[in-house]
Amino acid sequence: MKNNAGALLSSIRIDRKSKRKINLQLYRGLREIILSGGLQAGERLPASRTLAKELLISRTTVIDAFDKLISEGLLESHVGAGTFVSDAVKKHQAKLLQSIDIPATNGKQPRLSYATQQTRNKLARRDRLPHKSEAFISALPALDAFPMNHWARLSARHWRSNREHVMGYGHPYGLPALRKSIAAHLNTSRGIPCHSEQIFITSGAQQAFEIIGRTLLNPGESVWFENPGAIGARNALIASGANLIPVSIDDQGLNVEEAQRKAPHFRLAFTTPSHQQPLGCVMSLPRRLALLQAAHDTDGYIIEDDYDGEFDYGNQTPPPLKSIDHQDRVFYVGTFSKSLFPALRIGYVLVPANLIDIFQQLSKSWLSGTPSCSQSIISDFIDEGLFATHIRLMRKTYKSRHDALIQAGTTLQGRLDLKPTCAGFHTIGVLPKHVSQSKFVEAARQRNVLLSPLERYCISPIKTNGLVLGFGSINPNQISKGIQCLAQLSEFTPSKTAK
Amino acid sequence: MKNNAGALLSSIRIDRKSKRKINLQLYRGLREIILSGGLQAGERLPASRTLAKELLISRTTVIDAFDKLISEGLLESHVGAGTFVSDAVKKHQAKLLQSIDIPATNGKQPRLSYATQQTRNKLARRDRLPHKSEAFISALPALDAFPMNHWARLSARHWRSNREHVMGYGHPYGLPALRKSIAAHLNTSRGIPCHSEQIFITSGAQQAFEIIGRTLLNPGESVWFENPGAIGARNALIASGANLIPVSIDDQGLNVEEAQRKAPHFRLAFTTPSHQQPLGCVMSLPRRLALLQAAHDTDGYIIEDDYDGEFDYGNQTPPPLKSIDHQDRVFYVGTFSKSLFPALRIGYVLVPANLIDIFQQLSKSWLSGTPSCSQSIISDFIDEGLFATHIRLMRKTYKSRHDALIQAGTTLQGRLDLKPTCAGFHTIGVLPKHVSQSKFVEAARQRNVLLSPLERYCISPIKTNGLVLGFGSINPNQISKGIQCLAQLSEFTPSKTAK
Repeated sequence: MKNNAGALLSSIRIDRKSKRKINLQLYRGLREIILSGGLQAGERLPASRTLAKELLISRTTVIDAFDKLISEGLLESHVGAGTFVSDAVKKHQAKLLQSIDIPATNGKQPRLSYATQQTRNKLARRDRLPHKSEAFISALPALDAFPMNHWARLSARHWRSNREHVMGYGHPYGLPALRKSIAAHLNTSRGIPCHSEQIFITSGAQQAFEIIGRTLLNPGESVWFENPGAIGARNALIASGANLIPVSIDDQGLNVEEAQRKAPHFRLAFTTPSHQQPLGCVMSLPRRLALLQAAHDTDGYIIEDDYDGEFDYGNQTPPPLKSIDHQDRVFYVGTFSKSLFPALRIGYVLVPANLIDIFQQLSKSWLSGTPSCSQSIISDFIDEGLFATHIRLMRKTYKSRHDALIQAGTTLQGRLDLKPTCAGFHTIGVLPKHVSQSKFVEAARQRNVLLSPLERYCISPIKTNGLVLGFGSINPNQISKGIQCLAQLSEFTPSKTAK
Repeated sequence: MKNNAGALLSSIRIDRKSKRKINLQLYRGLREIILSGGLQAGERLPASRTLAKELLISRTTVIDAFDKLISEGLLESHVGAGTFVSDAVKKHQAKLLQSIDIPATNGKQPRLSYATQQTRNKLARRDRLPHKSEAFISALPALDAFPMNHWARLSARHWRSNREHVMGYGHPYGLPALRKSIAAHLNTSRGIPCHSEQIFITSGAQQAFEIIGRTLLNPGESVWFENPGAIGARNALIASGANLIPVSIDDQGLNVEEAQRKAPHFRLAFTTPSHQQPLGCVMSLPRRLALLQAAHDTDGYIIEDDYDGEFDYGNQTPPPLKSIDHQDRVFYVGTFSKSLFPALRIGYVLVPANLIDIFQQLSKSWLSGTPSCSQSIISDFIDEGLFATHIRLMRKTYKSRHDALIQAGTTLQGRLDLKPTCAGFHTIGVLPKHVSQSKFVEAARQRNVLLSPLERYCISPIKTNGLVLGFGSINPNQISKGIQCLAQLSEFTPSKTAK
């Protein structure tokens, strides 16, 4: 038979138990037959009435499927003559046939931009960020101590408010109410004189680093970067084409003299002066002044990442670098990932006054903005005083968890020396020289204790052989169990300290 | 008197009615005096007991303020001798004095990266995106028809679930459950064979355009771009350094032949084949096949922005370009801004199989991620069938709003000819040649009717003199009132058509 359409089409299997509608099943069946060359261009299809009868389905369903294929250009209807496979399909049938159901790689290596090619191999490996309260995961705040009842109440109130406020496009620079709340908070609690116009809400602190990098850096320009230092910020700046200059950290913080020797004409400096990430020291005033002066001298800028500075244990740490930045050289970056919780992905950047324009332009023209719902709930949370209360409580919580860790850690002396810190919810433990960080971490992981090797934070090797331990999300009981597990890692105990 | 500290310090004003704590008021007062040079380096402060008495505050409060200044390095305590202004302050006092309270620009133009300098002037001006249901705002869906009760219920359930799921860092590629829901939706409803591993959740469709641009484009490389075309996507690609090649649109969509003449070796093509943004036409099958072939021939890629293709009025439009992309050349980009609501800032991109690796690497190493709460609620919304129901209802809603607009618009014939469309919730109106788009838009705005001039969507001028009218968020009553307002713009009626 010249026209095999009837036989072919009646072979289409209609599954009445499937969730997929019958007209869609038929449509897909017909489509596959046409594209696979089962029907040639110009061939006539059986009448809808005939096909409906064959397949035991309604004629409307068949017409519907035909209509979809006609509008897609695979079929053509000629009045009085019937429905035909479209000519347009002809030369493309063979090609269309390929991999209709399974996406497979096209076999070719994609041609990436030079910038992506050059930077991707420099990116530091980053595991999935923490999401489970286990000893001694870092960067995770006290999820157990969060006032979720208040949060859920504010969230419910949010969805009940004016639909336009709740559902429409938000303000490109961030919710004005939240920007004001943040500016007020920075003025009163962090000693930073600022105006809400300088505040831009970002998708986590991470997006702030990225935008700053893109806005200021030419490929290959020097960026002073703490070594060891924050991994996410490091990758964001690498992706912007930065030439990262590793600068060592001592007990006064970033070694500005060393940095000036290595790269006097730096364009940007990344620093965590309130509580160094990950070592935990605080930048001294002379260093702060030297850093500000250096930025001024070379027309450079500074990123101050104040990720956990609010959690100082006894109001002992100095106010942020930004509070004495009288040359307006500092981008102050904050986040709610630590002070509230990470899933929000909300941070902010306080922008030097002469860069407000460009940040406004970028925000309006192509940045994607941040969900209004989270912003609005955070703003209420601050304005109702819940934020300040939470911070105050968390300072105590983190101090007591810190003390519990240091106390429990005394049993590890000589094997893993835990260093006390003054703020936040991580600290470091120093290993004896002969113990490999990665082997120790792996042995601990097998006992379900999670540690981060210090070397992962390093651009170039450092002297300290150690690990980062987080204690924000775990209670004293979990802390002491975690330490007990570590104490059992006897294979890393040099024989002389074993009793 | 050599030491004026006592007199100076007792002049500090403590405001007991202020929300700011007394110790902070004192701290700031002291700090200002020191930094302003009121007290010189080496000067001794009065004893805490004395100062407390003078200011009628507790001695603990004074000690607390002193401690903060000591830890900041501005004061030094010498046992037995008292508290002194630190030497470190000395040479910096004059500088520290500047602009202590008001951030002002440092007067210099900031030195931006070459890329930012070169691209910022090319960015199309974009107003604040729409957030109010007014005639004839575009890009805003039917906020009034959204099932907010279901949404609020799912939101409340979200905050009640496991804290680690709700509060921790989310998955860098997006919530796995949501990626699966989206893949299933694309398979069944959009005829796109795909796997959830190819889906990456982004911060709106906008972030997808940006990442694609950054990953593939070298500065100056050619990108075919619809003219007129989507403004946000245009800016995102300009920011990536793209050389946008404007390609005209006819009733078959993007003119591929013209594009090939203008820039045969294009790297990327941006297109809205299901419902052209803003003209509303649908790309024909021959054009689709030609575009796919062209991408294959030059090792280029295509961005398919399917922003509102789900809202076809009668299942008349063909399935997405991606469904016949057998060479795996198409990035399919979707958004929940239209199908749910814009405030979410959640979109997604279906990535060609051989680019999954690089998207995974970038997501893990430096992208900032998307809030888990919205993702989790959307995933539930899809899985409970609420999404499909909503889409189905919205198709009818938008069709009826479309019909109401076209019907009401007949009264404007000769002045503003409204063109019917087949999907979505915007269409265009054509003005007579002699009427200026911007003047018409301004006159309408004065009567509180919002229109978008077509020229704003254009990279290079086009023949059509027209406007974009949105009708998604307004009911038939608002539509007819809006048209009545436009009918009253008599100044734009050529005298011959006035009765």
